[in-house]
Amino acid sequence: MMEIKSVDDILKFASDCPSARMAVAAPEDDASLEAVKTAVERGIVTAVFTGCRHKIEAAMKRLGMTFENIDIVDADGYEDASSKAVSLVKNGDAQLLMKGTVHTDQILRAVLDKNNGLRTGALLSHALIFNHEKLSKPVVLTDAAMNIAPDLSQKVGILKNAAHLMKVVFGKETCKAAILAALETVNPKMQATLDAAYISKMSQRGQIPGVIADGPLALDNALFAEAARTKGIDSPVAGDADILLVPFIECGNVLYKSLTLLAGINAAGVICGAAAPVVLTSRADDMRLKLNSIALGAAAADRGYGKIRS
Amino acid sequence: MMEIKSVDDILKFASDCPSARMAVAAPEDDASLEAVKTAVERGIVTAVFTGCRHKIEAAMKRLGMTFENIDIVDADGYEDASSKAVSLVKNGDAQLLMKGTVHTDQILRAVLDKNNGLRTGALLSHALIFNHEKLSKPVVLTDAAMNIAPDLSQKVGILKNAAHLMKVVFGKETCKAAILAALETVNPKMQATLDAAYISKMSQRGQIPGVIADGPLALDNALFAEAARTKGIDSPVAGDADILLVPFIECGNVLYKSLTLLAGINAAGVICGAAAPVVLTSRADDMRLKLNSIALGAAAADRGYGKIRS
Repeated sequence: MMEIKSVDDILKFASDCPSARMAVAAPEDDASLEAVKTAVERGIVTAVFTGCRHKIEAAMKRLGMTFENIDIVDADGYEDASSKAVSLVKNGDAQLLMKGTVHTDQILRAVLDKNNGLRTGALLSHALIFNHEKLSKPVVLTDAAMNIAPDLSQKVGILKNAAHLMKVVFGKETCKAAILAALETVNPKMQATLDAAYISKMSQRGQIPGVIADGPLALDNALFAEAARTKGIDSPVAGDADILLVPFIECGNVLYKSLTLLAGINAAGVICGAAAPVVLTSRADDMRLKLNSIALGAAAADRGYGKIRS
Repeated sequence: MMEIKSVDDILKFASDCPSARMAVAAPEDDASLEAVKTAVERGIVTAVFTGCRHKIEAAMKRLGMTFENIDIVDADGYEDASSKAVSLVKNGDAQLLMKGTVHTDQILRAVLDKNNGLRTGALLSHALIFNHEKLSKPVVLTDAAMNIAPDLSQKVGILKNAAHLMKVVFGKETCKAAILAALETVNPKMQATLDAAYISKMSQRGQIPGVIADGPLALDNALFAEAARTKGIDSPVAGDADILLVPFIECGNVLYKSLTLLAGINAAGVICGAAAPVVLTSRADDMRLKLNSIALGAAAADRGYGKIRS
């Protein structure tokens, strides 16, 4: 099996290996269909669409999309399209799920449905894998999009999700996770530093399998050994983080946006924690990020996402 | 008077104009002295040091620093060095203040001293001015370093400080301020979006002179008109922000670090809100950022910082 070492490799792997099938909930507008079109054309996925056949076919025609490797399942409204897309994955007719024109809460409600959803017992969280020219390996930013202000156990869940993704995609058995805060010392006035201390101790006691977590760390000493040395930080993670856990969504969102828009990263994002990868791109994402994200979902599905979960 | 339009211009202005005098509290280690040495050599400032004469002179000799344009005032310990440096500014013997080897809380306590400090009634906040190749003008990030979780009135104070700095340095009479959050809609579960709504309304009612504030905005639609259009956001600030107000310090710190380390910005930072600019660089800052920050303090002092405050 091809070794994946970067976001570029993810795209290459997903393009080269036999296509996973992606269920897309109501891709009725051009923006949500464009990236799917390219992904199908490049052999990254085949696709099955749920929704209003008339609207989907109209959108496909507008984009000059052929019907090769595409199936359409009729659905009545966005909720029905969401639950039918989820069912396709649950039944094994598709290996990954993507949000089309439906609202985010509609697709997530279908994923989380107790009887017909894709629950695994894990919480859902967003993970963004990125490469930056100054970093020697891919890093995961989590959670920049799903959990608003995760409590301690939710933070641990987010970490486990990210580590599982890293294991599936990169074959990494153990991930180093930096628990981010505004500084490197525990400060009773800053909850992010207290949570970091708790999680560090849990990790040290072996309570988070597959993860070596340490914090509080600031972004610079999480990523750069030199910055950690300057501050005299003794940490198994500093300067070598695979995972960046942000304390709350505002922190993650601003980092996500600054990395994608100002720092020129190559990235791929996916929702973790369900029985299959869920691709949930934002209108603000550019085409490369959207395509990479579909490829990440396809690669993860192909390499056993959800099956090898401990 | 030379027009300043960028961080590069700030450095040029401070190098060209008659030097402001900077009081430095105990620059006894090489790291805190290095940037001062370069700033003095380049004519950005002249300097007066407070602290242990023996230690300061030893550090100066290690760095090969001449005693030209340098005075030393003896002080006994870091607290004394801090309060003597503040007194020099208060008495008009220096126009800006810089932290040397003393601890941050020591210098700030001296600045905030009720009788001998540099209080103005404003809160203290940190502002980072930066240029990025994708942005057509300098932008201020605030507050990434001082206020942990500012409440509504503190956020307004932070905005006023940033606007004052922009007015002094760039001659900008009115600044557009983006109140950042993780999304662009008001969500009762996300305090950052509620505060953004309050501040927007205050601004609309003319309660924040010199500032047109709007939010909640995410970083992308604050800075890029195209991103705001994609989301259909109607805002006087979106795509044209001069000031980025982050909801809490973790958010500011992670943005500060990603911008300086991964996004290649040119930046200068200063503490605002006292009667004079306070330069408070971090060990993690590189030499260019430290030098720019001294230049920003010098330029702001030269252009009337603290005197023209409304």
